[in-house]
Amino acid sequence: MADCDGEGAQTPLQLYERLTAQGDQVRALKSAKAEKTEIESAVQLLLKLKVEYKQMTGQDYKAGCPPPENLTVPDNGPSAEGTADEDEVNPWNVTTTNAKGVDYDKLILRFGSSKIDKELVDRIEKVSGQKPHRFLRRGIFFSHRDMHQVLDAYEKHKGFYLYTGRGPSSEAMHVGHLIPFIFTKWLQDVFDIPLVIQLTDDEKYLWKDLSLEECYRFAVENAKDIIACGFDVNKTFIFSDLDYMGSSPQFYRNVVKIQKHVTFNQVKGIFGFTDSDCIGKISFPAIQAAPSFSNSFPHIFGERKDIQCLIPCAIDQDPYFRMTRDVAPRIGYPKPALLHSTFFPALQGAQTKMSASDVNSSIFLTDSPKQIKNKINKHAFSGGKDTVEEHRQFGGNAEVDVSFMYLTFFLEDDEQLEKIRQDYTSGALLTGELKKILIETLQPMIATHQERRKQVTEELVKQFMTPRPLNFNF
Amino acid sequence: MADCDGEGAQTPLQLYERLTAQGDQVRALKSAKAEKTEIESAVQLLLKLKVEYKQMTGQDYKAGCPPPENLTVPDNGPSAEGTADEDEVNPWNVTTTNAKGVDYDKLILRFGSSKIDKELVDRIEKVSGQKPHRFLRRGIFFSHRDMHQVLDAYEKHKGFYLYTGRGPSSEAMHVGHLIPFIFTKWLQDVFDIPLVIQLTDDEKYLWKDLSLEECYRFAVENAKDIIACGFDVNKTFIFSDLDYMGSSPQFYRNVVKIQKHVTFNQVKGIFGFTDSDCIGKISFPAIQAAPSFSNSFPHIFGERKDIQCLIPCAIDQDPYFRMTRDVAPRIGYPKPALLHSTFFPALQGAQTKMSASDVNSSIFLTDSPKQIKNKINKHAFSGGKDTVEEHRQFGGNAEVDVSFMYLTFFLEDDEQLEKIRQDYTSGALLTGELKKILIETLQPMIATHQERRKQVTEELVKQFMTPRPLNFNF
Repeated sequence: MADCDGEGAQTPLQLYERLTAQGDQVRALKSAKAEKTEIESAVQLLLKLKVEYKQMTGQDYKAGCPPPENLTVPDNGPSAEGTADEDEVNPWNVTTTNAKGVDYDKLILRFGSSKIDKELVDRIEKVSGQKPHRFLRRGIFFSHRDMHQVLDAYEKHKGFYLYTGRGPSSEAMHVGHLIPFIFTKWLQDVFDIPLVIQLTDDEKYLWKDLSLEECYRFAVENAKDIIACGFDVNKTFIFSDLDYMGSSPQFYRNVVKIQKHVTFNQVKGIFGFTDSDCIGKISFPAIQAAPSFSNSFPHIFGERKDIQCLIPCAIDQDPYFRMTRDVAPRIGYPKPALLHSTFFPALQGAQTKMSASDVNSSIFLTDSPKQIKNKINKHAFSGGKDTVEEHRQFGGNAEVDVSFMYLTFFLEDDEQLEKIRQDYTSGALLTGELKKILIETLQPMIATHQERRKQVTEELVKQFMTPRPLNFNF
Repeated sequence: MADCDGEGAQTPLQLYERLTAQGDQVRALKSAKAEKTEIESAVQLLLKLKVEYKQMTGQDYKAGCPPPENLTVPDNGPSAEGTADEDEVNPWNVTTTNAKGVDYDKLILRFGSSKIDKELVDRIEKVSGQKPHRFLRRGIFFSHRDMHQVLDAYEKHKGFYLYTGRGPSSEAMHVGHLIPFIFTKWLQDVFDIPLVIQLTDDEKYLWKDLSLEECYRFAVENAKDIIACGFDVNKTFIFSDLDYMGSSPQFYRNVVKIQKHVTFNQVKGIFGFTDSDCIGKISFPAIQAAPSFSNSFPHIFGERKDIQCLIPCAIDQDPYFRMTRDVAPRIGYPKPALLHSTFFPALQGAQTKMSASDVNSSIFLTDSPKQIKNKINKHAFSGGKDTVEEHRQFGGNAEVDVSFMYLTFFLEDDEQLEKIRQDYTSGALLTGELKKILIETLQPMIATHQERRKQVTEELVKQFMTPRPLNFNF
């Protein structure tokens, strides 16, 4: 997938050379009679590069004919990504040029997942007997794989389990980081099922300029914020890879099984790894895949390897699980099902995912009421008009207004939200007033979180992070 | 290293295309300002390929000029490897066209190790106060890295530890497999130091068409033969990767550290991995590297990461430890020292390493006295003449005679061995008589091994394979 290539800006000549090399690669694979799936994924990358080349140069790629030196290229940076109207969405980068955010319908087509439509939301309501969570009602969880299959099994009283995770790249978590956990907590409450939460401290060590000790410490600190979301210690296992990988022979066995069934060509195609990447990055996807299989947790599921897994996560994590779903049947395990969420926008606008390293890009879980107020007033991108008069006359644009977007995530009352949207659009509600509603929604929410987090003792963290049976019989 | 490329036969055009792709790769790395070591190792491979191309086609590689279609190539197979007079030596393949076996002096030059000369053997004798093992006296352990440094430290009463291992690809072990263990046992006795033995069952799973369960079972079975060599349970820890990787967070932490500091370009250069290899193979070298660092075994060495490691192994394993020695200083650990052995010849001759899958290629540890006798009489390649008359007149060639080679490994008495050599060379000793001496040497040796192996209980295996403190204070 070129969109997660991570190689940055390329000249037409560089792209031409990559194409030539990739063509050689395809020929080499074919002449070596490599496996069909490997050849296919190499061909896939070749075709993608050809499309990029056409987009960049306006001409078809032809082997032996490098692009003319005087070719004009748009000079505004990462051409193949930036100038095409495709958003970039992969585990390490999410960018779009659209103020409304990523085009999620297009993403569903590109990733080959299914839309969470009204029929599915209604079915979840029927099967669970509960009003669907606002994230479902409002399309924040918008895409899925095999969710109907999960519900089929549930209706037949077959259990399933939840798996989600977080990459602990810093001590600081922002409100956006809570989205998968808030939703997972709801799913757990509604279906009463086990939950495993993976903290990929090894991944952060491999990708970032951090020590193992720092990454592990971030994992434990992040676990406290996750626990503060209200998870039940009798139903939830939280683990750091650095700890659990070295505490569970069965987990490592599944990692090796996955690693045997995925080639470098495949991870190159899926994640855009290059020959210069360290071997830790190249093999890591197997570690994020392994918790999708129930026998990775013998203390919870015994030797059972057939328990369906459901993964709620942001859509940028999908590449990992496309790979997992491809491998699963080949090693005799069921494919995990998925529920994908949209991205939580940065205060500055929906063009980018937030960054934990920019304190002004979002509301952090450690922010004081005053900081929350100041950040929203100062940084939250407004869809309002420049003057009160204009705003009253023409109304604001809720679709690009970050304060309104944040309210869709956190304001529970549908009617109230709809009224705010109408009033803002008509001009009856001013930007300052809209921001005030958001401030008054977030301040108590964050304060409550901080209160709960204070009550999370080291002892409780240890309990959550200890491999042990949960309150379920499998 | 092209000699471990594993890609098999190539046409001039295929090699030309690989060269073109590799040239693109080097340019891409340079333009992306990749790390110096990465660029260097890509350039290294490029140069190597150019030499191969010249050897194969008789002309220099020139970008843009593919080889003429009617180019004549020697039709006897893997040209670049087979026609060059270099032996192939890597962890998965050892071949030579010389009946005397691999040219070990050349190998020392190619690998950049040091010869174990008389000075070093004398020093080992002096420092240990023991007569050097016959493997040292006879050049069977012939090459080393940093052995003087190990002895310096030992003289200053600084401890060191031994690390060796085995890839359990089958239940059956042959006498050749015992070489590193016989020698390691001697080193342990003489220096009185801890020993760790790695059974790479994960590696065998990744490389062979075997299940995890089979590989693990082979590991346990092989452990019994290793224990039967007489190791002291209070000084020796034997581990299966599949078990220990999942039982020791500190071991996994070292694996991840190593994996962060080795790129795909590097393992491609060292081991000849290709894009079609699975990601498990690509990251495995870190797992064979990790036991070289003392803090991988906190139950033995506590938190100490500065204890020197000495690795006795066959020279085909050196690529792993060249990589390890390259990484060590970058992650703050001492480089492991090495002692390299020659290969144990197959009964059919020294051209190839033995194969555990060919029962007639060696004497197995399970062979009966009768099988030993029959195999040697029927299969041991003889350096004798075709008729008794010719043999008496011209004498035999001990240098290519497998029975004589085996005696250099297993007959303890130097004078007796030398007399056998002289008598065989002069023609006084006939092939049948030489074989008889070998049969009478091996039969009691194997019988004793079988007797000892019978006494190895499951309980004792479990004891050896349980992470626990050994009888040393670190």
